[in-house]
Amino acid sequence: MKQTRGLPVTDLSPAIILVEPQLGENIGTAARAMMNCGLSDLRLVNPRDVWPNEKAVAACSGADQILEDARLFDTTTAALEGLHHIYATTARPRDMVKAVLEPRAAGAVLRRAEAVGQRNGILFGKEAKGLHNDDVVLAGTIIEAPLNPVHNSLNLAQAVLLVGWEWWMAGRSEIVAPEVIAREEAPALQSDVIKMFEHLERELDETGYFHPEEKRPSLVRNLRNMFHRANMTDAEVRGMRGVIKALSTVRRRRLKRGEIGD
Amino acid sequence: MKQTRGLPVTDLSPAIILVEPQLGENIGTAARAMMNCGLSDLRLVNPRDVWPNEKAVAACSGADQILEDARLFDTTTAALEGLHHIYATTARPRDMVKAVLEPRAAGAVLRRAEAVGQRNGILFGKEAKGLHNDDVVLAGTIIEAPLNPVHNSLNLAQAVLLVGWEWWMAGRSEIVAPEVIAREEAPALQSDVIKMFEHLERELDETGYFHPEEKRPSLVRNLRNMFHRANMTDAEVRGMRGVIKALSTVRRRRLKRGEIGD
Repeated sequence: MKQTRGLPVTDLSPAIILVEPQLGENIGTAARAMMNCGLSDLRLVNPRDVWPNEKAVAACSGADQILEDARLFDTTTAALEGLHHIYATTARPRDMVKAVLEPRAAGAVLRRAEAVGQRNGILFGKEAKGLHNDDVVLAGTIIEAPLNPVHNSLNLAQAVLLVGWEWWMAGRSEIVAPEVIAREEAPALQSDVIKMFEHLERELDETGYFHPEEKRPSLVRNLRNMFHRANMTDAEVRGMRGVIKALSTVRRRRLKRGEIGD
Repeated sequence: MKQTRGLPVTDLSPAIILVEPQLGENIGTAARAMMNCGLSDLRLVNPRDVWPNEKAVAACSGADQILEDARLFDTTTAALEGLHHIYATTARPRDMVKAVLEPRAAGAVLRRAEAVGQRNGILFGKEAKGLHNDDVVLAGTIIEAPLNPVHNSLNLAQAVLLVGWEWWMAGRSEIVAPEVIAREEAPALQSDVIKMFEHLERELDETGYFHPEEKRPSLVRNLRNMFHRANMTDAEVRGMRGVIKALSTVRRRRLKRGEIGD
């Protein structure tokens, strides 16, 4: 086990292998995405620009250690050192007989190999064209994200994030079920909720409720947060408008009669 | 239904609301991520730079239509027009009582609202600091990705991709089960597989198998692909090395005896 900024990372986390990356910025944002997902082993095959690369460091947003530890290789085959299973990420079908997994399924399969002590590597091609066929051949399995079929080509760092995210999620023991929502009534339009606040705050301004002025922002925020959290229905918003109007009318009437001060 | 580059997109897909985005590049890559995930409704609240923005167009990689259709608003509340449920994406805990969902659960909940004709909007804060508390207050629910706890701040376009991806995946009817792998034997190290190829290709070169020379690359590729696909075990690789060696030795012996020509 080594430590990546406080997070324990097993040495079995997949290696991210960028083949001929063109832009330093993309190497940096890919490293940032790796750090987000708890990945640490970055391998670069013939990056176009000089390495180390200042633009990569500028774009990595704190993932400097991953860039410093990154290893350079002359060929993709050399970069497979120490790895048992190779995955190739592609956005377009290749004329090759090869198993294809979605990122989610790949996350599960990667974890299964790790659980029995095997190491995985994932190949990502250059920005403009993706992987060469000669690199895809090296992989036992293809990973392809089933995105918008007419626009499925991901930015390099986005591709690293998507695969990293699914690997990360596949390793979490805790499964969080979606919040159960059972609502029979129509939810309010947010613009109507906001009009309700404005009405309420106008009326409260007149009463001096927000005095002193410096307390106003936090009072308004707390009030709005409470109502937003309530996830109001359309009927509830109309009801509240009635409440505000009624209270204000009584208040004005009492003011007029001199029962209360302004 | 409208068409986004050939893909039918319902008008109920979530609105992506970028609050005070700072860099045109990030607006462009966010639009690209939206297009990848079949999203089309982009709303910008007070972008720092002039709009339309050339850098956004340069970075959007074909998602020009989303940028052209993007709407500008002066305030976050104005940008909630026509929406029923608002989600705020945050990377850090806020001092507010509010439901928090992971992106995967959020994807399911967003789809459920759409299924009954309701529209969702998702707020994304500016690059440096994320959303203001005043914007988070507007949301009924927070979306927080359970990433590496010491480095969970995502690039703006990466955050859009992650939420978009989970929304997109939640809408797919087809669930693809991970490939079933039942292997009892240890997989080979890829470097050993490659040494095996080199051995085989060396021997085949001597036989003239690759003649004429221009056929060599595709013959090598097909051969290598077949073996890589086989996902060889360590024992199989050693076995194949033995096979190659044995065949070559017999061949050399027969050559020597003059039984076959060179």
